[in-house]
This record gives sequence, C-alpha cells and structure tokens, in this order.
Amino acid sequence: MKKLIATFCFTFAFVLLFAQQQATWIWYPGDFEVWLSNDMQNRRTERGTFFPPFWKMDSHYVLVEFHKEFDVPADEEIHIVAEGKYNVKVDGKMLPGMPKTVQLKKGKQKINIKVYNQAQVPALYVHGKTVSTDKEWLATFEDKEWIDETGKASDASGTTYVKAGYWNFDKPDQFPSQFRLPIRAEASVAMTKQAKGTLVDFGKNTFGFLTLHQLKGNGKLSIYYGESKEEALGTATCETLDYLDIQHAATKDSTLDLSKAFRYVYIEHEDGITFDNVSMQYEYLPVEDRGAFRSSDEELNKIWEVAKYTMELTSREFYIDGIKRDRWIWSGDAYQSYAMNYYLGFDSETVKRTILALRGKEPTITHINTIMDYTFYWFLSIYDYYQYTGDKEFIEAVYPRMQSLMEFCLGRRNQNGLMEGLSGDWVFIDWADGLSKKGEVSFEQLLFCRSLETMALCADLLQEQDDKVLYAKEAASLKAKIFDYYWNPAKNAFVHSRIDGVQTDNVTRYTNMFAIFFDYMSKEQQQGIKSSVLLNDNVQKIMTPYMRYYELEALCVLGEKDFVMKEMKDYWGGMLKLGATTFWEEYNPAKSGADHYSMYGREFGKSLCHSWGASPIYLLGKYYLGVKPTAAGYQSYDIEPYLASQEWMEGKVPTPAGEIDLYVSKNKIKVQSPVGVGTLKIKSKSKPKSKQGAFIPVDKDTYTMALEAGVAYEVDYKSL
Amino acid sequence: MKKLIATFCFTFAFVLLFAQQQATWIWYPGDFEVWLSNDMQNRRTERGTFFPPFWKMDSHYVLVEFHKEFDVPADEEIHIVAEGKYNVKVDGKMLPGMPKTVQLKKGKQKINIKVYNQAQVPALYVHGKTVSTDKEWLATFEDKEWIDETGKASDASGTTYVKAGYWNFDKPDQFPSQFRLPIRAEASVAMTKQAKGTLVDFGKNTFGFLTLHQLKGNGKLSIYYGESKEEALGTATCETLDYLDIQHAATKDSTLDLSKAFRYVYIEHEDGITFDNVSMQYEYLPVEDRGAFRSSDEELNKIWEVAKYTMELTSREFYIDGIKRDRWIWSGDAYQSYAMNYYLGFDSETVKRTILALRGKEPTITHINTIMDYTFYWFLSIYDYYQYTGDKEFIEAVYPRMQSLMEFCLGRRNQNGLMEGLSGDWVFIDWADGLSKKGEVSFEQLLFCRSLETMALCADLLQEQDDKVLYAKEAASLKAKIFDYYWNPAKNAFVHSRIDGVQTDNVTRYTNMFAIFFDYMSKEQQQGIKSSVLLNDNVQKIMTPYMRYYELEALCVLGEKDFVMKEMKDYWGGMLKLGATTFWEEYNPAKSGADHYSMYGREFGKSLCHSWGASPIYLLGKYYLGVKPTAAGYQSYDIEPYLASQEWMEGKVPTPAGEIDLYVSKNKIKVQSPVGVGTLKIKSKSKPKSKQGAFIPVDKDTYTMALEAGVAYEVDYKSL
Repeated sequence: MKKLIATFCFTFAFVLLFAQQQATWIWYPGDFEVWLSNDMQNRRTERGTFFPPFWKMDSHYVLVEFHKEFDVPADEEIHIVAEGKYNVKVDGKMLPGMPKTVQLKKGKQKINIKVYNQAQVPALYVHGKTVSTDKEWLATFEDKEWIDETGKASDASGTTYVKAGYWNFDKPDQFPSQFRLPIRAEASVAMTKQAKGTLVDFGKNTFGFLTLHQLKGNGKLSIYYGESKEEALGTATCETLDYLDIQHAATKDSTLDLSKAFRYVYIEHEDGITFDNVSMQYEYLPVEDRGAFRSSDEELNKIWEVAKYTMELTSREFYIDGIKRDRWIWSGDAYQSYAMNYYLGFDSETVKRTILALRGKEPTITHINTIMDYTFYWFLSIYDYYQYTGDKEFIEAVYPRMQSLMEFCLGRRNQNGLMEGLSGDWVFIDWADGLSKKGEVSFEQLLFCRSLETMALCADLLQEQDDKVLYAKEAASLKAKIFDYYWNPAKNAFVHSRIDGVQTDNVTRYTNMFAIFFDYMSKEQQQGIKSSVLLNDNVQKIMTPYMRYYELEALCVLGEKDFVMKEMKDYWGGMLKLGATTFWEEYNPAKSGADHYSMYGREFGKSLCHSWGASPIYLLGKYYLGVKPTAAGYQSYDIEPYLASQEWMEGKVPTPAGEIDLYVSKNKIKVQSPVGVGTLKIKSKSKPKSKQGAFIPVDKDTYTMALEAGVAYEVDYKSL
Repeated sequence: MKKLIATFCFTFAFVLLFAQQQATWIWYPGDFEVWLSNDMQNRRTERGTFFPPFWKMDSHYVLVEFHKEFDVPADEEIHIVAEGKYNVKVDGKMLPGMPKTVQLKKGKQKINIKVYNQAQVPALYVHGKTVSTDKEWLATFEDKEWIDETGKASDASGTTYVKAGYWNFDKPDQFPSQFRLPIRAEASVAMTKQAKGTLVDFGKNTFGFLTLHQLKGNGKLSIYYGESKEEALGTATCETLDYLDIQHAATKDSTLDLSKAFRYVYIEHEDGITFDNVSMQYEYLPVEDRGAFRSSDEELNKIWEVAKYTMELTSREFYIDGIKRDRWIWSGDAYQSYAMNYYLGFDSETVKRTILALRGKEPTITHINTIMDYTFYWFLSIYDYYQYTGDKEFIEAVYPRMQSLMEFCLGRRNQNGLMEGLSGDWVFIDWADGLSKKGEVSFEQLLFCRSLETMALCADLLQEQDDKVLYAKEAASLKAKIFDYYWNPAKNAFVHSRIDGVQTDNVTRYTNMFAIFFDYMSKEQQQGIKSSVLLNDNVQKIMTPYMRYYELEALCVLGEKDFVMKEMKDYWGGMLKLGATTFWEEYNPAKSGADHYSMYGREFGKSLCHSWGASPIYLLGKYYLGVKPTAAGYQSYDIEPYLASQEWMEGKVPTPAGEIDLYVSKNKIKVQSPVGVGTLKIKSKSKPKSKQGAFIPVDKDTYTMALEAGVAYEVDYKSL
C-alpha cells in the first residue's frame, strides 16, 4: 500500500508540473466557492418571494496577498489582471501604480501582489512566458508586514500562507465574478389552451430561463411553473411563479432573468398581450459523459437514464438538493451526489467546490446547514473523495478546516462524551413520521465515530502523527461506547437512542444499516441485523430515496443483491410508472395521484427532481457492475460484477485516468481498465477461463483474477 | 453612586422613547462600520501605488434577518426600502414578492424582514406612522428557522438576536452604501512658478480632492503633494502623487477622485496642457463645535487652535492616525482621539464607529492592528467612553465582543500568566530608539491588568456577576505579579521587562507613568517615580507626542502642572515656531530644517498631521480647565482649574447635556454646568466667596464648593 501511494504521488506531481505552463485565475482558497454559493443559494424564490437559507453564510477575505518565488530563465514581460485594486512588489520593491505589465529581469525573484475587493472575491491572473498564476502561488489574508520607525520590516510576522484556490478560469478575460453556467435553447413539446390561459409542456422536468417569443402588448402576465401539470395549473398553490408587468409596444423575444424548475408552465395574461411561442434557455453544468450503464432490462436502463438526468439537473455551480427547491447545498444530500458522481461524471472540481462551500469559514458556531449529521457527512465525504480520486493535494488544503470543525464537535460532547442536540442543533437523520431526536441518538454517535476515523486516516495520510493518534484514540473510545450503550442482544440490533442514560426500546434502521457498511461488526452480527432489522417489516419503513440509498447499500453488502434489484425496480420503477422524468425527494407507493406531490404541508411542496433520488447510479456501478477502488485513485480496485435478473449488462466506470469498461453476460465477461491493479472476482459453476490471465479459486464457486492496466480481458465462465 | 446611575438611566430611556418617532436605516451591529472602514482604509496610496493595511480585514454578514414586535394602534401603511434582496413576514406569514408597501392591520404583530447583499451591507429602512426601523429592532445572521416534513417550524433554534446597528441615515434615500463625507470648495492662497512647474500653496495643511480649473490639452500631467514645500518639490521622494494622462479637447474643471493630504501641491506637465487655477474640495466630518479654550497666552491659544484643526482633519469616517499616512484606524492612536474628542466635539458616534471598526468580527486570531498594546487600549477606551457619555447601551452592545477578545488574550498568556509577544504579535509601546520588546514587558502587563479591570467594571455595570468576579480576580492576581516581578526598590521604579524570568536592568518611562494615572501606587511611591523616572534625564526621553501625552498627564496628576505647561509650550510651541499648521507624528527639537520631515527611512515619511499630536486639547481641558466626570455621563464631576503661567483662561467642556462654561482669572472664577452635581475645587489665599454657594475648606489653602446644574456661579478668590 505504501509503495502504491508513493508511485501515485509521483505521477500526480508530473501532471502538476505540466499543468503549470498555463495561467489561471487564483484566489484565497475557498473564497470563490463561498461567494458563488452565497449567490446561488440566494436565488430561490417561493411564489415570487425571495427565499434564502437560514444558516450562517460566510464571506470572502476582502484583502488578499498572493506571492510566489521564481527563477526566471530570461528577461520576460508579465501581464497582470486582477478583480480589485492591487499593488505589485518584485523582490520586496513596490512598483509604481497598478501596473498592467511588468518587465522581469532574468534570475531569482519573489513576486507579491495584494488585491482588495469588498464586493467580489479578490482574484488575480498573471501571465508571462514562465511566470504565471497557478495553484502553487501562496496566499494570505493578513501578511502582518509592519515596519519600525527606521523602515525596517518585521521579521517574525507569524503569517500563515496557504496554496491559492483556483478552478478553470484560464483566460485573462474570464473574470471569476462573471461566472455563469452555460445555457442552450430548448423547445417546448406542446402548447394547449387550458382554463383562462396556455399550458406549455417541455416533455420532461427541466431547469432554466423561460422565453416568450414575439411578446407584445401592455398588461399583467402571470407564469405558474409546475414540475407536474397539476402544479402548473394550481395557480393558488404552485411553488414558483412570476408576475410580470409587460410594456412592449413592439414584439420582442423575452427571456426571464431568474431560472426556474419546471416541466409544465401555465401562462395567464390580460387582454391585449400576445406571444407566439414559448421556449427555454436550459442552464447546465458541462460535465463529461463518462459513466455508463446498459443491460438487457429496459426498465433498469430507464431507471439509470432518469437517475443520470436527475444528477445532471442537480449538478450545478454546486451539488444542490433539488431544482425547484431548495436549490441549496445540503451536506447530507451532496454526500450522495458525490458518490453518484464517482460512477457518472467523475467531476472532481464540483465535489471540491461543494465541500469548500459547505465548510465555509471560521468561526464555526453551528453545524453545517445547522444539522449535526450533516457535519459528519462532510467529514466522511473527504476521505471518500480521496479514495476515488487520489487527490492528496485537496486533503492537504482542507485539513485545517477539518481540524477546526472537529474541534467544534469535540467541544460539544456531553458529560458522557456523546453528541446530543444542543439548542440550535438540528438532528435530522431522515424525514420519517415521529422519529425521535431526543437524547443521545445512536445514529449521530455512529457518524461521529466514522468522522473521527476519517480524521485519523487523513492525519495519517498527511503524516500528522500526533493528530492521528489523538483522533484514532477518540474514535476507538467512542466505538466502544456505541456497542456498550446501544447494542441490545435481545433485539439483535442497535437501539435508536438513550434518554437520561437509559437505552430506549426503539429500533430504527439507520444505525444498524450504517454499522454494516462501516464494517463495524462481525459477519454473524451483520446477518443478525439483516433479519432482525433490515428485512423486518415491523421496523419503521424508509420513505425517502435518501435513506433508501443506505438501506439498499447495506443489503448489497450483506449479499442481498437480488432483493435489492427487485426493490430498486419496484421503488424507482414505481416513480417511472407514475410518469416521473426525474427522481423525487420522497416516494410513498401507498399514495395516489396528485397526493404524491405534497410535502411540508404544501400541495406541491415536494421536489420532483432531487439529487438523492439518483442513487441507482451508485448502486448499479458499485454493486452490480461491482467496481470500487481499494486504494486511492484506483491504484488498486475490485471488480465484482453481479447479474441479478438481467441477462447481460455493460457499462463504464470512470477513474482519474479514464474509464473501466465492462461487459457481463451469464457466460462472458469483458473488462479493460486504463489504470491500477485490479482484482476481478466472479462466481462461476466452473473455473473461468481467459486468454489474458489466470483465475485463482478463493472460495466455493468463487474465483479471482488480477487485472493489469491497458489489457482487454475476455473471460468465459458459467454464471451460478 | 447607585442612585445617580439609576436616575441617569431613566433620563436616557426617555430620550430613547422620543427618538423612536423617526425611522432610521439599520443593519447588523458593527457591519456597516467594518464595511466602511475597509473602504476607507484601502484608499491610501504611496507614490501612486495602492497601499492597504497588513492586518486581517473583516466582512459584513451577507444575509441578515431583522424583526420587531408592534402593537399597531390603527391600520397603517408602511414603506420598505432595503439595500439588497429582501422578503417580508407579518406575524409569520410571508408576503408575496418584494413589497415596497405593506398594509398592516391594527393590533399586535411581529414583522420580520430578511435582507441579502453580498457586495454591500444588508440594510433596512421601514417607515410608517408607528412602525419604523429603529435601534430596538433585533437582528441575526442565522435565524435557524428550519421546518420538518409536515411544514412545522423548529421550536428550539437557539438563535442569538442582538439589537440592530444604526447611525444617522434617517431618510429612505440616504443609502448607507452611498455614504460620503461632505466636501466644500476651498481656494489656494498662492501659485508660483518653480523649476519646471507650478507650486500651489493652500496656506495650511489640508485634506481633500484637488481641482484644476479650465484644464485643457493632451499629454501627461504630474501632481506631487507635500505637507511641506520640500516634499511637494521633492518629486522623487514625496509620499503621494498623481500621474495623469490628460485628453481634454475643451477646457474643463477637473477634480481628482482620490483625496490627498497636502499644504503644497507641485504640478508639472507636458507642453500643450494649460489650466488657470488650482483649488480643492475640502473633505470633512461635520462635528459640532462644542469644546473651547482661550487664555491670556496667545501661544497657548495657538497651540489649542492648531490641535483642534489637527483633530478636525484626523476625525473622518473614523478616527485615523494621520491624513497623509497611514489613513488607517490604529487603536492606540484612536484611544487618544477619543480622549481629545471628549474635550472638543463630544462626537460619540465617531467613537462608537471607531471602536466597532477596530474590533471587527470573529474569529479573533490576531491582536487589533496586530499590536498587543493596541488590543489593551481598545478595552480601556470602552470604559472611558462610558465614563464620559453614560451610554450604557453601547457597553451592552459591545460586551460580547469584549468577552471574546479577552478570551483571546487570556489564551495567549505564558506559563507565568504574563503576556509575551508570540509569533505575529507586534509589541509596539512607542517609536523609540532601541526599545526592547523581548520577554515579558512590564508595560504590556500593566495595560493587560487595566483591561481586566475594565472587563470587571463593565461586567458589574451589566450585572454579570460571575464575569465580574472572574475578571476582578484575574486583574488582582496580575497586579500583584506586576509589583512582584517589576518593582525595583533600589531604582525606585518599575523596570522595563523580565527575560527568562529575570528582571532586566532597564528603566523606561512607560510603565512608571501609566502606573501613576492608573492610580496603582501610594502618593509616596508616585512622588518617588516622579524624581527617579519622570524628571530623571538619564531615563530615555520620549520623542513622540503619542507617549508625551501620557507622560505629561502623569506629571499633571503628580501636581507638576507648571512644569507641564512649560513643556507643552516648548514642545508644541516648538512645532509652531517651525511653521506647523497641524501637529506632527514625531518632533525632535534637536533636528533642524527638512530633517524634521523624515521618518521610516524615507525623506518625507513623517506625517505632519497626526491625531496624537493634538493632545493639548485633552490636557488643557482636563488638567487646566480641570474638568472631568466622576460618575458616568457627568452625573457628577470635578472642576479643579489651574492657572499656570496664564493671567486668565476660559473655555467650554462638553457633556452629554450641553457644555460646562468656565472662566478663571487670578481672582475670579465663573462656572455654569447644564448637568449633574459638580465639585469646584480651588486653591486660594483666603476662603473664596460666591453668592451662589458656600465653600468648604478641605486642606491648607484648598476649598471646595458643590455646583448645581443650571446655576451661574461667580466666585471671588485669591490665587496662590
């Protein structure tokens, strides 16, 4: 393992060196993400009213110093562009004015540029032949460079410098503050007269800016948006709308300036207003099309495609929960988007942006999104990210913020060393009727424990030995408490909570299923939980795709892949049968008709395009195509394909270096990986055969074969 | 004392009630101050180059919720203006859109308005007959109003609400973000040809925007600013300049857009450019003219007038150090401006703004301005403010930020419980050759001790009993250490520092003189220090008006008012003899000619208009007119006039309720106060007489008389 990581770092360093040739806009790390997320999250409206988040939003540093040392091979001219006022020092000497170009002399020198901008993020772009802004520049928000009365600069400033933040703003006129997602025109599929107005159907749930073509006349025009037809026509209760006052003497194509989510749009207007067509500007995040899944099962393929589209719509400036609402970044929701992303676009930049936006800035005074569990998912997301991408650089960058957030958590433990909701803490867990949040909830301790383990893993990775020991010790101590306090042998399950130090009687699925894929239990204990909790209908059922995701994952880990496949087809297939074009925030098969659309006490309160609805992408990629990394960045990985009710399946799973290609039928497997050392593990009635490698039996009917990068393997076997 | 404070609070509450009739713009407390101070402090340039501060600058909260409960006597319409996007809830019900007017029904109701603005401070103005924004509205930056899946709002949000911030933006179109100091046109007094250009003299040091009249032509024009003639003509070394590229086909009056400090302006330009006159737009903070001083001594009157003008120039959006540089807010400098202000404009709003701007926001990770002593002056300033103004409301508002800053300080103590410069801490004390900042410097402990006492006083005022006990205990313990560790009986003085636990041999003036007016010693000890330190020429002399202020104050306390008067006339009179029109950052009588203007290793580095140069205002008001409050807000006060070398003096000292008027000659005193209970204390060869009151002998040749508010007293006496 050690060796593999070392090799990988070397590869990475090489890529980095190469990347330095290009200039890119830089800023204080996390600041653009905070600024952009404020902007994005404050675009939500509810029935025309501005509807902002309720948690603390942070701000960028208004004054940032950037610097880097260079050994310039020959005299060169550099060009400077900044968002904000700035000054430039070359080797400690301040240059006059705010120079747009600077002549550098050959030789070693340090370039410092200080940028001030209160309204937007101070950002910097320097471009020369060898001297350009890149992620190796250092940044600080207080350089503490005071001088004494003789003019001598202080020599012990104690300033903390960190590596600059960056994304993909690689051109001088690509100002970060001007960032917008791209748009493309899309037509509606039907326009019909309904009641007093016009109903427009876009054929599927979508997101963007509505365009009214050849709009003319004077008077009021109302637009009611609906993710369902009922919602668009429900003018008194639909969630989003626009009331416009039109004053167009001449016809004009008019595009609204605030994006909305809709499949249907219902338009009413006063007499004298006319328009001839309605289209939209579809707004989207460009993500490479990398993950794929197809099988002999058309329903399953449809599930995968709709999940993919759901992911596409909810992957925006950041991973958001839903496109109608909340259009906010929720840590627990984003944690699932990350996981799906690893089996779809493998878009690391959006994962990093979202992690940074969620963390925000010091001081840490509340849980992320105010939710205790959401703080913990944030920790969990970081090691997952490393495991899939191998991007140690990001762990380094984010580690200080991990430390301070963990300090916040440790400081909130009660006298038993457990996390309990304090005033202002939202203990969420899941949307479920009557779910108790009182006392010391076992699920929170479990996530907290995993967070501490994550800290220990990251500390180890960064060779922070003292931290590693500290966090590992805290994790071990908490884990022991979880078993002591919550395991109930009679129930063969973890109970839900303790209140006043006494175990409650209640068993819920959450702690039990997470304990399984956290691998906290013996195989026997796991199987015990399977029957006493997961497959026990007396335990309260899960109604959200959000927790459904984890439940099904736990069952996959427990080998119940046929059962899970059936559930997946029932549950997600159930939404498809109801006409879903994107997956929902919640789905209760017992409901019927437009009842499906209500939530939060509102007729159309439910989001019909919710990122957590897209989890089949993850389940199919990880447990059916069966691909997962076993060392960071797919330096090693397992492929354990599983055909459930399907005749065959094929797909692609992205890695940092390209896609793993896989085809599986009942007697043929084809696989090729661009990276790492793989282990193909299959069940077969007889020993499988491949011209490209040799199988080793490991268990009854189970065989493994090592996979080398770049080799196209074909395997003949006999499915059980 | 108790009773007096109670009476005073009642008066204050009445004023408050009255003030509520008017609407005013509100914001999250401290946010406008942070935002405006960022803006102001980033206007400094050095030779045309942007020159920002080197400490952490904070930001406003981007999303703020404001609310207040009202009992509306009759249906009324309210008008809403906000800087930012907003929404409105009346009694928990969200109103549609972003309403500019709202119809309120008669009766009790709560109004919540949430404002978002990332570029500027979210600010709100509501105006109705009875419902208007005022300082009683509450604000928060995280309302934590989440709902559950049924739509039920959380009932334990744990949100902290604080009273809104405000200033004097009382009209709906007075947007806080548009704030500018007023300007007025002022003419130059002379224009002469010099070398290759034109030298313009404005007759005195001033601050504002230069105007070139009837400017025409194409080409380069350079403006060199000087607080001295030498500086303006020193084109290669002057501190501030403007290089302009003029393209004026027609003549045009042109005013520059960045204000500068100057008495002289030297202008050079290319052929073909013409202008016919040069004037300026003087930029100033409007402050009521309240304090006054005049005497038989014309030099002293001039000192007072020039000090007053120095204060006028350095009192701006905030109290800054100097007008040429740094144009920044320094806590140690501002602390002195506050004190002078109490004897001049009594402009409490500028004191509060400056205190809030200096404190900034959490997290507290560095000392104020990075300087340890400057953190302590910040604490000291707050109780002083209360003592002079009686404004308990501000103490309440700022107390949480005092607590967190003190927590920061307590956390930085070394193993001996003392403050020692850590990496990144600037131990300033004073500009003085070779002054050691190593180890545990006694001066820092003394200020720290006083800060702890201030915390205890404020805690007591706010009836935070536990805090009071805690801070008082820490203060007492530290005070004991100061005597144990630093008092050297052989030297009859506090030594400068301890290094590695060992007292150093060095005696400096700082600790010794502060210990006197902090009243930490017996009268005997004080007199000992007077001879062994303050009047001992072997102890390093003070060269800055900054520390001169405290030295002279200590000597005043020790009864050396004749000596101090002589020093004051020598030192400040010395600057006047050199033609000073404002007082300087530093003055060393041993220098000559343009040598006076150098500092920081730069030929014209010295600021010739520095707020700390204006201290005669304070000394004359407090120790010669002899007026000072003895209970908060002048509910009680002492007047102990002292004629030094003057035949007579007269003046006004502002109080929250008007000015105390005083005339003093060698045999006549006239005094009248609008407020409180005063004690007039005078020395006289025989018992003084007054028709309006009776004197009581208190000591040899010393008599006191009680003063009632509103009575014009005339006293006949015989000066010693």
